[in-house]
Amino acid sequence: MDRYLVISSDCHAGLPPEQYRDYLEPKYRDAFDVALPIQIEATKEAAKKFLVADINEDWRKGAETGLSGAWDHDARVRVLDADGIAGEVIFPDGVTEMNSPPFGAGISLPTEGIVPELQWAGARAHNRWLAELCQMAPERRAGLAIVPVLWDVDEAILEVKWAKQNGLKGVFIPCMWGKQDGYHHPKYDPFWAICEDLGMVVNFHSGAAPMEDYGDGRGMVGMYISEVAWWLTRPLTLLIWSGVLERYPRLKVALTEGTSIWVPEYLALLDFRYEDTPYSSKLGDYTSHLSMKPSEYFARNVLVGASCMPRREAEMRHEVGLKQMAWGSDYPHPEGSWPETESQMTTTFRGLPEDEIKLILGQNAADWYGFDTEKLAPLVARVGPPKSRFSAQAP
Amino acid sequence: MDRYLVISSDCHAGLPPEQYRDYLEPKYRDAFDVALPIQIEATKEAAKKFLVADINEDWRKGAETGLSGAWDHDARVRVLDADGIAGEVIFPDGVTEMNSPPFGAGISLPTEGIVPELQWAGARAHNRWLAELCQMAPERRAGLAIVPVLWDVDEAILEVKWAKQNGLKGVFIPCMWGKQDGYHHPKYDPFWAICEDLGMVVNFHSGAAPMEDYGDGRGMVGMYISEVAWWLTRPLTLLIWSGVLERYPRLKVALTEGTSIWVPEYLALLDFRYEDTPYSSKLGDYTSHLSMKPSEYFARNVLVGASCMPRREAEMRHEVGLKQMAWGSDYPHPEGSWPETESQMTTTFRGLPEDEIKLILGQNAADWYGFDTEKLAPLVARVGPPKSRFSAQAP
Repeated sequence: MDRYLVISSDCHAGLPPEQYRDYLEPKYRDAFDVALPIQIEATKEAAKKFLVADINEDWRKGAETGLSGAWDHDARVRVLDADGIAGEVIFPDGVTEMNSPPFGAGISLPTEGIVPELQWAGARAHNRWLAELCQMAPERRAGLAIVPVLWDVDEAILEVKWAKQNGLKGVFIPCMWGKQDGYHHPKYDPFWAICEDLGMVVNFHSGAAPMEDYGDGRGMVGMYISEVAWWLTRPLTLLIWSGVLERYPRLKVALTEGTSIWVPEYLALLDFRYEDTPYSSKLGDYTSHLSMKPSEYFARNVLVGASCMPRREAEMRHEVGLKQMAWGSDYPHPEGSWPETESQMTTTFRGLPEDEIKLILGQNAADWYGFDTEKLAPLVARVGPPKSRFSAQAP
Repeated sequence: MDRYLVISSDCHAGLPPEQYRDYLEPKYRDAFDVALPIQIEATKEAAKKFLVADINEDWRKGAETGLSGAWDHDARVRVLDADGIAGEVIFPDGVTEMNSPPFGAGISLPTEGIVPELQWAGARAHNRWLAELCQMAPERRAGLAIVPVLWDVDEAILEVKWAKQNGLKGVFIPCMWGKQDGYHHPKYDPFWAICEDLGMVVNFHSGAAPMEDYGDGRGMVGMYISEVAWWLTRPLTLLIWSGVLERYPRLKVALTEGTSIWVPEYLALLDFRYEDTPYSSKLGDYTSHLSMKPSEYFARNVLVGASCMPRREAEMRHEVGLKQMAWGSDYPHPEGSWPETESQMTTTFRGLPEDEIKLILGQNAADWYGFDTEKLAPLVARVGPPKSRFSAQAP
């Protein structure tokens, strides 16, 4: 094989908002009709305040066809083929943050300003549609079901089973739990158990943050993007210390689009705290329920979705863990690599050992999400980026 | 000089709780009499739940005289002399967390479950007492006034002026702002202005964390100690991005007892976000109000109180910034170096260049808090740790 298998650990898909109506249970459609114009207006306001509307408009201009791959099967195939991407993991929210499921069921999964029952309904509508999209190219698409687990663990378990039966490969759950119970709480144990049993990857994706803490001044964006990866990694701290990863040793967790640069220092800190230091002895026994160091749980149970990795991250690969990193394109978001994926990719990986590039570009994600690489081989032979372009001598 | 000037950037002092009564404004003494037994009981309960009561009891046994230096001048002088420490920066909360000022004015400065007016009263009681303690050895003691600035900026400004007039060297303000305005808010500008004008260092100290997020299971302590330094550094993120350190270029900030190991990755992240990357271009202009990179503000405006530094932190000194680190003993807390300060210190610094040890052990804190090193010289000649004990050849 002279081409790389590339699997994007971070792609997004979502219908134009009005099209979610058909996928909603009928009893929620009246509420949908009321909420839709409010959602569209709120998205516009957010673009004005936070995402700069005109920059996004510029970026979209001329790219309309490619961006319609956010929901259109044929367009999506063309884009991913041209990008050299054979497989993808699919989170919600398509073009920028416009194509979000209804009732606050999108990438931030807020716990305030929403109605739990409706958020669930919005999530299920997205999941139904996403399962259809994935069935059009099941070997290429690992779709993730949106699961607002904070509100109802029993409901979440049913949704995990439904998602498994309908070909989805994992669940996407909120990073922030607001006033609900955090992920240390034993009430979630049956949820971890079913995810482990069915091999459904538990996914967190960056995006949520306590925006009310940042005000609306010039510094707001800087604070947000400086902290957003921390809010993403926070659930992992709870999963490790509360012993969830001890009790569910085969549970697969993915933390996506928060870079991977935080990993070495994060693990050093947790391992340091795990050891019996003068600092912590006054706090009594808080480690004997864990048979391993935090970094060992990380190596066993966690994959980092390192979207659009810059060169620096590739250089940190041994510190992060060669088998813990999975490159992502973040298509169709403007901060993603599309439509310049190959040049970004070769800049990042040029001259690194072939077997290491192979892991990060595709094999790690294939193992985590259960892609059938044999089935993908003919596609890789046609669209995968040639290995020669990554050599140190390549132009 | 064959001995090092040692200044502890992190010490604590506090009266036995009942003794704060005399320092309270008379109108708050009735409330104090009601609150005191509740406070004492709550401290005991916290020790049972979180700090393990019997470990703390063991630690205190036989150390009663030394620990009485938490409030007693003579005992404190003896302890610090024996520890080789010439000068100290003094935060609230003495022995473990028992000697806390009344009405929730202690090291966590909570924003819920307290009455702002009373928290202010408790803070002022502590400040009055602390000013007296510092006046007994003004060349050795840089006391910090507790200032609950979140509730009332005008009141805070008056307190800064009072503290300056009464010989205190800085202010201690909350790390967490709860539902109040964060430190990005322009309403705090007059507060930064007066601190800058009067050369009063703005201090944050670890301790506060959203305990309600951690539950009460076995993992609670691990989560707390894994996150506590982040809650400490969070205000700095706001100060940098909101332009406070741009508008108040001589403002001195200290972040204490959160280790210093977070610094290199923190600055790399903020600098990365500061640059115009594909990731952030959709967010518009959020940097042009800042004339420098985040790491440059850090180097100019921030000192890190690195309490009881392990060797690893000393080895990271160039990445953290040689002039940004200040060793601390954390006396009289059980996680502190007392009564084994010299052996801990020599293990940490053995064989490093003398001029670098000098900065971290004392000179950096002297410069930041305005200690008069000439006045301290005779004391250093008597009690300072001999430089010979830090040589690579020392036993």
